[in-house]
Amino acid sequence: MSTLNQVLVGIIMGSKSDLPVMQDAVDVLKTLGVPFEVTIVSAHRTPQRMFDYAQDAAKRGLKVIIAGAGGAAHLPGMVASITHLPVIGVPVKSSNSIDGWDSVLSILQMPNGIPVATVALNAAKNAGILAAQIIGTQDKEIEKNIIAFKAELAAKVIETAEEVEKMTF
Amino acid sequence: MSTLNQVLVGIIMGSKSDLPVMQDAVDVLKTLGVPFEVTIVSAHRTPQRMFDYAQDAAKRGLKVIIAGAGGAAHLPGMVASITHLPVIGVPVKSSNSIDGWDSVLSILQMPNGIPVATVALNAAKNAGILAAQIIGTQDKEIEKNIIAFKAELAAKVIETAEEVEKMTF
Amino acid sequence: MSTLNQVLVGIIMGSKSDLPVMQDAVDVLKTLGVPFEVTIVSAHRTPQRMFDYAQDAAKRGLKVIIAGAGGAAHLPGMVASITHLPVIGVPVKSSNSIDGWDSVLSILQMPNGIPVATVALNAAKNAGILAAQIIGTQDKEIEKNIIAFKAELAAKVIETAEEVEKMTF
Amino acid sequence: MSTLNQVLVGIIMGSKSDLPVMQDAVDVLKTLGVPFEVTIVSAHRTPQRMFDYAQDAAKRGLKVIIAGAGGAAHLPGMVASITHLPVIGVPVKSSNSIDGWDSVLSILQMPNGIPVATVALNAAKNAGILAAQIIGTQDKEIEKNIIAFKAELAAKVIETAEEVEKMTF
Amino acid sequence: MSTLNQVLVGIIMGSKSDLPVMQDAVDVLKTLGVPFEVTIVSAHRTPQRMFDYAQDAAKRGLKVIIAGAGGAAHLPGMVASITHLPVIGVPVKSSNSIDGWDSVLSILQMPNGIPVATVALNAAKNAGILAAQIIGTQDKEIEKNIIAFKAELAAKVIETAEEVEKMTF
Amino acid sequence: MSTLNQVLVGIIMGSKSDLPVMQDAVDVLKTLGVPFEVTIVSAHRTPQRMFDYAQDAAKRGLKVIIAGAGGAAHLPGMVASITHLPVIGVPVKSSNSIDGWDSVLSILQMPNGIPVATVALNAAKNAGILAAQIIGTQDKEIEKNIIAFKAELAAKVIETAEEVEKMTF
Amino acid sequence: MSTLNQVLVGIIMGSKSDLPVMQDAVDVLKTLGVPFEVTIVSAHRTPQRMFDYAQDAAKRGLKVIIAGAGGAAHLPGMVASITHLPVIGVPVKSSNSIDGWDSVLSILQMPNGIPVATVALNAAKNAGILAAQIIGTQDKEIEKNIIAFKAELAAKVIETAEEVEKMTF
Amino acid sequence: MSTLNQVLVGIIMGSKSDLPVMQDAVDVLKTLGVPFEVTIVSAHRTPQRMFDYAQDAAKRGLKVIIAGAGGAAHLPGMVASITHLPVIGVPVKSSNSIDGWDSVLSILQMPNGIPVATVALNAAKNAGILAAQIIGTQDKEIEKNIIAFKAELAAKVIETAEEVEKMTF
Repeated sequence: MSTLNQVLVGIIMGSKSDLPVMQDAVDVLKTLGVPFEVTIVSAHRTPQRMFDYAQDAAKRGLKVIIAGAGGAAHLPGMVASITHLPVIGVPVKSSNSIDGWDSVLSILQMPNGIPVATVALNAAKNAGILAAQIIGTQDKEIEKNIIAFKAELAAKVIETAEEVEKMTF
Repeated sequence: MSTLNQVLVGIIMGSKSDLPVMQDAVDVLKTLGVPFEVTIVSAHRTPQRMFDYAQDAAKRGLKVIIAGAGGAAHLPGMVASITHLPVIGVPVKSSNSIDGWDSVLSILQMPNGIPVATVALNAAKNAGILAAQIIGTQDKEIEKNIIAFKAELAAKVIETAEEVEKMTF
Repeated sequence: MSTLNQVLVGIIMGSKSDLPVMQDAVDVLKTLGVPFEVTIVSAHRTPQRMFDYAQDAAKRGLKVIIAGAGGAAHLPGMVASITHLPVIGVPVKSSNSIDGWDSVLSILQMPNGIPVATVALNAAKNAGILAAQIIGTQDKEIEKNIIAFKAELAAKVIETAEEVEKMTF
Repeated sequence: MSTLNQVLVGIIMGSKSDLPVMQDAVDVLKTLGVPFEVTIVSAHRTPQRMFDYAQDAAKRGLKVIIAGAGGAAHLPGMVASITHLPVIGVPVKSSNSIDGWDSVLSILQMPNGIPVATVALNAAKNAGILAAQIIGTQDKEIEKNIIAFKAELAAKVIETAEEVEKMTF
Repeated sequence: MSTLNQVLVGIIMGSKSDLPVMQDAVDVLKTLGVPFEVTIVSAHRTPQRMFDYAQDAAKRGLKVIIAGAGGAAHLPGMVASITHLPVIGVPVKSSNSIDGWDSVLSILQMPNGIPVATVALNAAKNAGILAAQIIGTQDKEIEKNIIAFKAELAAKVIETAEEVEKMTF
Repeated sequence: MSTLNQVLVGIIMGSKSDLPVMQDAVDVLKTLGVPFEVTIVSAHRTPQRMFDYAQDAAKRGLKVIIAGAGGAAHLPGMVASITHLPVIGVPVKSSNSIDGWDSVLSILQMPNGIPVATVALNAAKNAGILAAQIIGTQDKEIEKNIIAFKAELAAKVIETAEEVEKMTF
Repeated sequence: MSTLNQVLVGIIMGSKSDLPVMQDAVDVLKTLGVPFEVTIVSAHRTPQRMFDYAQDAAKRGLKVIIAGAGGAAHLPGMVASITHLPVIGVPVKSSNSIDGWDSVLSILQMPNGIPVATVALNAAKNAGILAAQIIGTQDKEIEKNIIAFKAELAAKVIETAEEVEKMTF
Repeated sequence: MSTLNQVLVGIIMGSKSDLPVMQDAVDVLKTLGVPFEVTIVSAHRTPQRMFDYAQDAAKRGLKVIIAGAGGAAHLPGMVASITHLPVIGVPVKSSNSIDGWDSVLSILQMPNGIPVATVALNAAKNAGILAAQIIGTQDKEIEKNIIAFKAELAAKVIETAEEVEKMTF
């Protein structure tokens, strides 16, 4: 458990080697003030643990699950099949992946009935923002944080634009 | 406006030719009891209308936007860049698409900062379910509907399994 | 149960719509004299049923499981994660699939530790033959059937070769 | 503003990290004597700025816009939807891109009505030449520069051909 | 020669079987009031004719060449290598093409020095609009026509949007 | 045996179902006056026959082998590994193929030491022309036929070009 | 011969450069207690040796063959065409491969009648486990080893999960 | 000119940067005793030179042309359109290529009538062997060299096989 408040977002991944990618979700959720937890759950090596995690998630008060995995990435889809919570899938470009296509397609192409909200390859940061947006539909504080976050993104672009416009080409 | 209640989900698409695909989102939102609206908003042919729709969405009380588009599909990502609401993108396999890869990649591969919750190619039904799951994180009634919906999916599989097990091969 | 003898191969698929493809596995197993059973098990719509099927398979005397699925096809890999039996995966080119790439990659690209013996797209016949080859490593009768089956394949080619050589071009 | 003359070509890009690629457009436009400007405009992080830039471009005397972007690259297409000027799109192979396919397809596959003149992956140099060719259809000086530029390309090939023909293999 | 005025755009294609696709360029150029000509020029079957066409184009007063071709589509790139005029390439999804990828890549991926302004697969209409935009940078009449054309695109979307908003879902 | 003269080209294919595609090689070799033979040789179903065919080909006076196959197409490469004659491979888009990519890559991507002269997907006509070109390097008659064939290709393009130029658009 | 016991699994590869990848099969078979042998057999450079190896394998008491190859990888499929034993194919991402796609497709997409049990790109470890699973269907000792191996995989995940849960984010 | 004898094979490439790849063709032709020449001919930067080279090749006594190029690689196909000699195409994976797919497809997918004998990505060595095989159909000396070359390939595999069989695993 990473905070004192009620954890709202569970961040899980198939292997500790996914942590450098998934860290971006952690960081942006802290920035946006959303309480979260982080652990390792492997669909293929610990199927029972995956089952238990998904089945208990709503009961434990989680609102959203972020699941990252690479290769034939079944974790997001299988968690989505067990829980009724929204599940966000992060395709991870792992070392054995075929350029990431396997991760992307095995997370994205879920059959009718069981959606996974898929983000771009390795885009754990966007998974965190999306989780916050979902929480923000019912939490004014977090909604405000997202609006500020987007304003800051814009401000930084303006700043670099000014830099570039001053450059001599 | 499709219901008397506060509309919570906006379903938009780039062209009326996307309606047969997007109809699945309409149908499942009705099944799950989520009030919605439907209209046409083209990022490329009506950029100002797209801007206005995205900017007003939260003010009008929408909680989630579902955007479907084909080819170089910019509608979901551009709407996501303007609103702070969660945006669900449906890649549509349109007639000029290169097997749907263009729609998928131009919706999925959003840069850091601006997520789009992407579902499978043509999977408007899953977009509707995902929208309901998001609403369901704060609405017990809709959460119950989703749980029942998933139970029914399972029941139907059991039923066909029994049929198949009785077949003579 | 499809035969009086001990069933050795379980043929499962995610949906009854996969049956026309998977029927080829049924037919070739009958030709090769391998007792089998057929049922529907959906990883995504009936995860618990999938769990139970995979966990009981070895206890019930099965030696091999053939699992067919389309799109983000998690059934073969998830069954392989739960049982210690060899699992053969059949990627099915379903209607919503992106040309079959999603099915192929989400079955083939399993992480280290949990193999799925993947066959070609829609190649349920080859899945049946491979299951028989596995059984044939310990059963002389079935081994003989496979050898005869391969001889017949060759004989048919010789026959059509003779036909073609007699044609006037 | 990079020159004293009327700027004819606007070079924009989604992020300063695209500058090393886009610099090639700058360099070749200088070689060919076409006045240009350079700035940062992000479709996703500064949609309003993108709108304003595109809407004012023709009024400010620009004749052509070169827009470079990576991943789900919406900048060239969105600018093309707002202005009536010809827009040249440069797909940039950014770090999170899936081998550049996402950038290429989301720029190239524009719907009927809104073309983007797409060049090869990372080919900002060709974007610059194409912009000069467009200006050259109405400006004899620049047309002459392009003809000379092409003659020099040929001369360099002849030179290396002579070198290679003298090598001992 | 299709009009009495000076022809400004040459529309060429590798084979008469490309005409149904390339007809869209013809139609939109007529709509936009740009004088054009149409003929068949095959890079592979009539290389000398291709050479002559490209070499004479500027002398004959053409300002832009639109070249459509399928498979290993060398026509646009080879014409661009010979003329200094801007060349627009239309990848055509011919019957022997591998889903159009061959046409797209062999037109788009031109080496530095020789750009081809590539449009989407089969998007001859966009090629026509782009040619008009190029002409429009120096011709007020055609520029006005393009602005009107874009306004009409928007008006049609608004119209279908109103239709859809009135539908009962 | 299809002619009275010494057969110079062997046309083989993995299955009679490839004959409609491979017929184009037959037809063009007849047009170009090259004696040939046609038969069925399956690398996978009749490996010994494939071995024997490849080993005897040069002894029997063949100069070139054309081999067509689909899916995991091993026939061209395996024949090339056994004979020292030039082998031309025709990737066939068979019903179970993944859009032809499997056929193309398993014929084209031969390791260093064992080339296969690969032609386009389903391009048996080009395989026949290439075989004739190889024979034509030592046979003046056939060389003359190829030159005439190419002249006729050009003449037909000129003819349709004239037709198109007379059309009213 | 690597052990004193009856060798049950033959590990072959097209070139010594594949050994670093194929070593994983060696290691896991040792871990699981399955006797094996290792050698080099090239389908393309030593077709007769490949023939002999495949034809003698069953007579020599082998139960399973693991064949690794890259590029246009014909070794697994050709061995499978000659022997009636189950053949496991390992696609190797060799230096000249097109991102591994050629290896994967030329092993996976075998025609009906001749299956190859394909594992993920470079996944020689999974090939070894699959071979052990096949042997394990008739050997209680090896079956026990596999069950223990899977339990250890799970235990290691639990361990890293505990580590991660204790981390401060 | 690289030898005193009549040059039989012309090796051309689009740019000197292709020489490190194309050197393999040079080396193997020397090994096999086939006289050759090497030069630079760019389809896009020196179209006239390409025309002249292709038109004169047969007159100068060449029997085969090997053409290497990257990206939108038009050199092999354009040379094949002008000469009636067999043309071997080498797709080069250049720095701006999209993983080599563009080079492969723009060389391989030639339209009916104009074949290019395509070899694997970067496989200039195989292009050289194939050229020698073509010459070898009329030259006993070179035929003998090819047979010896293939025997040596086999011998080297046997040697490494013996090494590997002696290793302790």
